[in-house]
Amino acid sequence: MIGRLNHVAIAVPDLAAATALYRDTLGATVTDPTPQPEHGVTVVFIELPNTKIELLEPLGENSPIAAFLERSPAGGIHHVCYEVDDIMAARDRLKDSGARVLGSGEPRIGAHGKPVLFLHPKDFNGTLVELEQA
Amino acid sequence: MIGRLNHVAIAVPDLAAATALYRDTLGATVTDPTPQPEHGVTVVFIELPNTKIELLEPLGENSPIAAFLERSPAGGIHHVCYEVDDIMAARDRLKDSGARVLGSGEPRIGAHGKPVLFLHPKDFNGTLVELEQA
Repeated sequence: MIGRLNHVAIAVPDLAAATALYRDTLGATVTDPTPQPEHGVTVVFIELPNTKIELLEPLGENSPIAAFLERSPAGGIHHVCYEVDDIMAARDRLKDSGARVLGSGEPRIGAHGKPVLFLHPKDFNGTLVELEQA
Repeated sequence: MIGRLNHVAIAVPDLAAATALYRDTLGATVTDPTPQPEHGVTVVFIELPNTKIELLEPLGENSPIAAFLERSPAGGIHHVCYEVDDIMAARDRLKDSGARVLGSGEPRIGAHGKPVLFLHPKDFNGTLVELEQA
């Protein structure tokens, strides 16, 4: 069912500093920061040959990564995102298996303009899993 | 400098249960467990089209992931591994920039039989970074 690893997301407290670290110290290709107010984050993509890393900085009130950064002020790996061919079929298969889909259980439009779901980390070895329609 | 994302490593307390989760619930291709006593882990690879996930279970005394699982008993994302073309040049560039290389600072042979280094998570936004010679 799961396909490509679309991205690994890393929450950071200071996007400019983290961007400089990946660009200058690790020598990676990084994009300009993109504010996504509808998702409560500003995003920089680290473009690797086979996938990407998303650096996420909180934006505005009620950012979905604010609580994570309160627990881990220096930042940390926030989630992994796998692509699926049919997100509704994936959702139904997961629910049938007992895995918990976060929120309403319905896909919403994610940071790449495609339907996404998040799965409860307690059901996946402490790993927050995002599924994105391929 | 950094190239492909070689893998994302997830530490798990019960490799058989985690393997079943990725194989049956997420429908991924998983390998048989491989004990790596020299690294203190037993490993299962989740083979994705563009990269892989490594599930790590502690093996033997003094496993390098034992302390992580004491802090996070359900498991969690342990590190990310980037490929580099020249690990010695990467090491020197990182040290010059002030990043801390763990251990002796010399590459050792990693789980894939290639030279690897680990970088201090405090220098990379709370993310343990492994570099592997491509």
